[in-house]
Amino acid sequence: MTALVAAKVDGEELWQDLERLRRLGARQDGGVARLALSDSDVDARLWLASAGHALDCKVSMDDVGNLFLRYEGTNPEAKPVVLGSHMDSQPTGGAYDGTYGVLASLQALRAIKRSKITLRRPIEVVSWTNEEGVRYKPGCTGAACFTGSLALETAYAKLDDEGVSFGEAMKRCRSMVSAAGVNWSPLRRNFHAFLEPHIEQGPVLEANGASVGVVTGIQGVSWFDVEITGRAAHAGTTPRSRRYDALEGAMALANEMRDLCRDKGDMLRFTIGRFVVAPGAVNTVPESVHFSVDLRHPDAEELTRLRNRFANLAKETWSGCDAKLRTISELAPVLFPHWVINTVAEAAEKNKARSIRMPSGAFHDALHLASHCATGMIFIPCRDGISHHPDEEILPEHAETGARVLAKAAVELAR
Amino acid sequence: MTALVAAKVDGEELWQDLERLRRLGARQDGGVARLALSDSDVDARLWLASAGHALDCKVSMDDVGNLFLRYEGTNPEAKPVVLGSHMDSQPTGGAYDGTYGVLASLQALRAIKRSKITLRRPIEVVSWTNEEGVRYKPGCTGAACFTGSLALETAYAKLDDEGVSFGEAMKRCRSMVSAAGVNWSPLRRNFHAFLEPHIEQGPVLEANGASVGVVTGIQGVSWFDVEITGRAAHAGTTPRSRRYDALEGAMALANEMRDLCRDKGDMLRFTIGRFVVAPGAVNTVPESVHFSVDLRHPDAEELTRLRNRFANLAKETWSGCDAKLRTISELAPVLFPHWVINTVAEAAEKNKARSIRMPSGAFHDALHLASHCATGMIFIPCRDGISHHPDEEILPEHAETGARVLAKAAVELAR
Repeated sequence: MTALVAAKVDGEELWQDLERLRRLGARQDGGVARLALSDSDVDARLWLASAGHALDCKVSMDDVGNLFLRYEGTNPEAKPVVLGSHMDSQPTGGAYDGTYGVLASLQALRAIKRSKITLRRPIEVVSWTNEEGVRYKPGCTGAACFTGSLALETAYAKLDDEGVSFGEAMKRCRSMVSAAGVNWSPLRRNFHAFLEPHIEQGPVLEANGASVGVVTGIQGVSWFDVEITGRAAHAGTTPRSRRYDALEGAMALANEMRDLCRDKGDMLRFTIGRFVVAPGAVNTVPESVHFSVDLRHPDAEELTRLRNRFANLAKETWSGCDAKLRTISELAPVLFPHWVINTVAEAAEKNKARSIRMPSGAFHDALHLASHCATGMIFIPCRDGISHHPDEEILPEHAETGARVLAKAAVELAR
Repeated sequence: MTALVAAKVDGEELWQDLERLRRLGARQDGGVARLALSDSDVDARLWLASAGHALDCKVSMDDVGNLFLRYEGTNPEAKPVVLGSHMDSQPTGGAYDGTYGVLASLQALRAIKRSKITLRRPIEVVSWTNEEGVRYKPGCTGAACFTGSLALETAYAKLDDEGVSFGEAMKRCRSMVSAAGVNWSPLRRNFHAFLEPHIEQGPVLEANGASVGVVTGIQGVSWFDVEITGRAAHAGTTPRSRRYDALEGAMALANEMRDLCRDKGDMLRFTIGRFVVAPGAVNTVPESVHFSVDLRHPDAEELTRLRNRFANLAKETWSGCDAKLRTISELAPVLFPHWVINTVAEAAEKNKARSIRMPSGAFHDALHLASHCATGMIFIPCRDGISHHPDEEILPEHAETGARVLAKAAVELAR
């Protein structure tokens, strides 16, 4: 029966949908700029709503702009299985980050309907609001308000760069969407499960020749700020033995931290992205260095162990300079339930898709949903791991395979 | 007879002169801002001219503003022994960089006159124009025009930040100085020898408990720009094995270069002062790094050897990233003649001053004069090696000792 569902996935129709959506907020360079609650983002909602109506779905939007297409099962009281992602993009974004997830979910819903399979639970497709966090910071406003980690008033009060509040933008969106026959739906409804298809935004699937990533969770992230304080000195007149070179110290500490993170499995992500040297004159020994550390791992214990090692290193002096380490932010890893992971893995297997299990390196709406219901994710490869860029690209066959695996997994969860 | 000259050095008078001059261009914070050819710099010339007239010297200024006080010897045809430095300062400068050299030279001249010693050669005191290179870039305009390495028209055409040309500023200076009875003198006159007293601008004398530095020359300087090019990538999704981290590469190359410069004698000066990482986002693997290298050593061969080593290192890849090394500037070391060095060393010895032989780590007018005549320098200690800063400080006893050594050496050279 589930094989039937996957066979009803129409890869060409999905690709046409992707091409249709990339015209909403299209950039000259082939990329997409579809900021949350902008005209093109509202257009995307209207398009999705009409697609829902065409499927005889109940289409509704909640107070934070999350749009739902609901396909009833045999038991209207049963909690729904929800599929989806987001349709807003980065200002210099691509056509697939988020949007692929919503359109693959729509395609899975169509396949389910076409297969005429009887399911106990309702299936819903959702598009979450402002995942990217570009127009209103931080991101995942829709998912965070829905699950209750962000208060609606707080979200409404956020201003964009032009001083337009999220609340005003939302009101405008509501009036246009209501005119198209979209109903209101409440926040914090209970879900049986949430599945988010998404492009990987990394090179792992491609490198492994896999077409599906069975996502095991979302790795934890710690951000640190490290400050090294030395003493400025004349480059020509100050002997090495009398220097307190903040750059030399910062490099020594950074290298030591980096060495701690060379794990055999290549699971740890250690990145120094910001590294600022002052005063920055060619002939002056640096007085201070500020650098950032972005540390990620799927295992909370490993993150704690490294945080402690980092803290101890910062207590030492480096080339005679003092170091200071501050934790800027800390997000614990999320592990998806094994039964959801296994459902996705089996769906991939039945579709004969080459899959690997992997944590997500980036954040997603699923991070928020994981605290609300049983959650899982399905990755498809993107070329060279590129995302958040007009060059973002995926293959039609991967897009189709992802939708097939999703449709199968959704049916399993909705029985 | 030379002991007599040194005994005629009046440390208190010298200190009063230093206190007098620090009021011309005084800053609220105790520092001095006396930019070249500014009102306070012209005032300093007028003060020096009147001091020259009081000593019955012939006072003259050349076309680039270098001011000379000439005390005749028995043979007016003999080439003069010239002592001096500069009186312009950094915008947030101290009271001694340059000025000490001019006032110690004036004090030495006074001591020579007071000792009534008969000398064959004329003694001159000089104050060179725009050594600091703050108002008009680069520095040492006066010395460079005098010795012929810079054309007068080129100097005249330089503009300051307000668009005032060096030529205009010079004209204004000339009219005020002429009114005070200062004559014109030609550029490129021949000197028998030039001696420049100066604060060390480094910590070596203080660290060694020495009161006089017998300067052996001025170390050579090479400036390099190093560029490392990697590939930007997402900090969360890109495994270490698939990164081309420009910062990691830059650190590896920088450390290798630094290690090459750890000489036992601590004579090499290796400084990375500028270090710029792009794009500089916390969660993005750096795409490129630009860093500067300031390399100094008194020995030209050693500099060449290291330049070649650096060039070879830059041919390798660093953490998978390409490196590019460009030479930005290159100044060969200057070695002062042994007989001048020895004359200074003997003068220090006769004054029972604790001295050490050392190269100059910073540039001076003497660098230009070295191509024009036999040149030497005398350093005195400055507190903590600080210069180019309002906190610049020297001890009165060191100021006096430096003038005594200078007076003795000048007499030896002028016999």
